[in-house]
Amino acid sequence: MNYKAKLIIFLFLGLSVLMEAQNVKLITSSDLLLSWNDGASKKAIIDFVPKTTKEGTPDFIPIADRIATFDNDGTLWSEQPMYFQLAFAIDQVKAMAPEHPEWKTTQPFKALLEGDMKTALAGGAEGLLPVLAATHTGMTTEAFEQIVKDWMATATHPITKNHYNEMIYQPMLELLQYLRANGYKTFIVSGRGIDFMRPWVEQAYGIPPYQVVGSSGKMKYEMVDGKPVIMKLPELIFNNDEDGKPIGIHQYIGKRPVFAAGNSDGDYQMIEWTTTATDYPRFGMFVHHTDAEREYAYDRNSHIGKLEKGLDDAAKNNWTIVDMKNDWAKIYPGDK
Amino acid sequence: MNYKAKLIIFLFLGLSVLMEAQNVKLITSSDLLLSWNDGASKKAIIDFVPKTTKEGTPDFIPIADRIATFDNDGTLWSEQPMYFQLAFAIDQVKAMAPEHPEWKTTQPFKALLEGDMKTALAGGAEGLLPVLAATHTGMTTEAFEQIVKDWMATATHPITKNHYNEMIYQPMLELLQYLRANGYKTFIVSGRGIDFMRPWVEQAYGIPPYQVVGSSGKMKYEMVDGKPVIMKLPELIFNNDEDGKPIGIHQYIGKRPVFAAGNSDGDYQMIEWTTTATDYPRFGMFVHHTDAEREYAYDRNSHIGKLEKGLDDAAKNNWTIVDMKNDWAKIYPGDK
Repeated sequence: MNYKAKLIIFLFLGLSVLMEAQNVKLITSSDLLLSWNDGASKKAIIDFVPKTTKEGTPDFIPIADRIATFDNDGTLWSEQPMYFQLAFAIDQVKAMAPEHPEWKTTQPFKALLEGDMKTALAGGAEGLLPVLAATHTGMTTEAFEQIVKDWMATATHPITKNHYNEMIYQPMLELLQYLRANGYKTFIVSGRGIDFMRPWVEQAYGIPPYQVVGSSGKMKYEMVDGKPVIMKLPELIFNNDEDGKPIGIHQYIGKRPVFAAGNSDGDYQMIEWTTTATDYPRFGMFVHHTDAEREYAYDRNSHIGKLEKGLDDAAKNNWTIVDMKNDWAKIYPGDK
Repeated sequence: MNYKAKLIIFLFLGLSVLMEAQNVKLITSSDLLLSWNDGASKKAIIDFVPKTTKEGTPDFIPIADRIATFDNDGTLWSEQPMYFQLAFAIDQVKAMAPEHPEWKTTQPFKALLEGDMKTALAGGAEGLLPVLAATHTGMTTEAFEQIVKDWMATATHPITKNHYNEMIYQPMLELLQYLRANGYKTFIVSGRGIDFMRPWVEQAYGIPPYQVVGSSGKMKYEMVDGKPVIMKLPELIFNNDEDGKPIGIHQYIGKRPVFAAGNSDGDYQMIEWTTTATDYPRFGMFVHHTDAEREYAYDRNSHIGKLEKGLDDAAKNNWTIVDMKNDWAKIYPGDK
C-alpha cells in the first residue's frame, strides 16, 4: 500500500472510530477516577464534565473555554505540619547558615536554626519575609530553579519520611487527567511562589510552567560576565491569595475558569469568581481535610489552610465539598 | 468490523504512516511557508526547525522546551502610522468626549480631539498615560474586553481602510503555523497592553489568551450588585518592553524560549535572552521594515519601532534579519 492510500484509510478509520466512540463509550471516561469512591463528590464530577463536552447541548462549553484552576497546597499536595515551601526555606536557612554568622543573633533566623518554631512563626507571614528574601532572592532564576530541584530530590517530610513530591494526591492527579482527557486546560493557581512550583509541577502533575499562577517577586535583567541573567530581588510584587487569585487568573490566564478547586478560604474568591458567571455551567470544589489517619484533619480552627467561609457557603452556592476520608480510596500515589 | 478491530487497525496504520512520514516527507513541512520567497531568511527557518525535532540528534529539542515568542506590533501586524492601541485610545477619547467636557481644555485630550497629533504626542509615552488611564481603566475587565472587540470589528486603518486585524502579516501567520506543526508553543510577548491583545489574538493568530504576555495595570476584585467583578485601575504595574521582555517571559512562561522574533530594539533583550543560552540551538529574528510600497520602510530613525542595535549586532549574534520587501511574497492575508 502506498503512503497516500495508507493515510486516507488512516484518516477514514480515525473518523469512524471517533464517531463510534461518541455513541458507544467515550474513551475519556470516568474510568480514570479510580481512587474516587462512589458518592456525592464523584457523582458531581462525572455529572458535570461529560455534559460540558457534548456539542449542540445547552451545557456545552467550547474547548477554548474549558479552563480549570487548582490551588496547590492542601488541594493537590499536603500542606501540614507547615507549607512545604516554608520547610524548603528552613532547610535553606540551615544550609546557608555558615555564611551568615549574623543569623545566630537575628530573629527569626535564630529561632529557625534552633528549631524553635513557635518563636520563628510568632511574627506570622510578615515576620517570615526576611527568611523568604534570604532564601528565595539575591540569585539568578536559573540558580534558584536548580536549588529547588535539588531540594525536591533529597528533602523528606518529617512525618511520612517521603519526598515532598510523593505527597501529591492520587485522586486529584486522576481528576486532572480526567479533565484534560475531556479537553480542559488545567492550571495551578497558588498563593505560594511561582518560581518554587515551576521546577517540579510538570513532572508531578503534567502541568507545564506556563500554566502555573503564583506569587512573585521583582526581577532585574542584567549582564554577568557578558551573559544575561535574571536576578531575583527581595521585593514581593504579587500575592496570589484570596482577592489576588481572581486577579492572578485574569493576569495570567485571561479567561474566567469554568472549574475551580481549592481547600481553604484563600481559595474562596477564586471559586466565587469561577462559579458566579452564568454563560456556562460552572463547578466549584473544596477539598475538606477530614482524614486524621491517612493525612490530616483540619478546617475552621487551623492556622494553615483554614476553611470556614467555604464550608458555610458551599450549600447555597452548589459547591462540592470533597470529604477526603470517605471520598478518596487512596491519598498518595504510593499508598496501597 | 467491530470497534476494537477498527481501533487496532487505526493505531497500526497511524504508526505506519508516522514511520513513513519520517523517512519520506514530513507532513508538517516547510510547505506551510507559502508566502516566503526563497532566500537567506526562509533558509535559516527551514534549516532550524526540522533539525530541532529529530530525536537522538544533537540539535533535538524536547517538545516541552519548544517555546517560541513573538513581539506583536511590527512583528505580527503593522504599527504605522501609530501603534494600533494608540489609535484605539484616540477613538475611545472621541467616543467618551461628550461625558468629559473638561477634555476640551485639558492636554493631551484637547489636542487629540482637535486632531493635533504633534501637540498630543509632544509629551512622549509618559504624556499619554492620562489618555491610557481614561480609556483603559475605571471599568471591569469584561466591559473593556467588549469595547476592544467592538472597536476591532468596526474601526479601520487611516491609510489601508482595512480593519486592524486584517493588517496581520501572512508570512508570520505561516511561520506560527509551521512552528506549531513542529511541536512549538507560540507566545506573544508585546509591550502593549495584555488586555488590549487578548480579545482578538486567538482568532487572528491562533494564540490563546494564556499565551499572551504584555504590559498590565493594577486590578481590584470587588462586589458590584452582589456579583464579583475585576476593576481595572489607573496604575501601570508592568511594562513589558526592553528589559521587561525577558522578565515578562520568566514571569508568565517560566521557560527560556528557543525561538524569538521581534522588529525593534524593544525586542533586543528578548532575542538576546533567547539566543545566549547554550543547551539547545536557538533562533533570533528581526523583521526589518523595508517595503515602503506594500507596507512601510523604517528602522534607525523611526520614533515607532526603532531598529538600530538589532541591525548592528545581528551578524555577530547570528540573528536573522527578515527583509520584508524581498523575503515576503505577500504582506497581508488579503493581498493578491
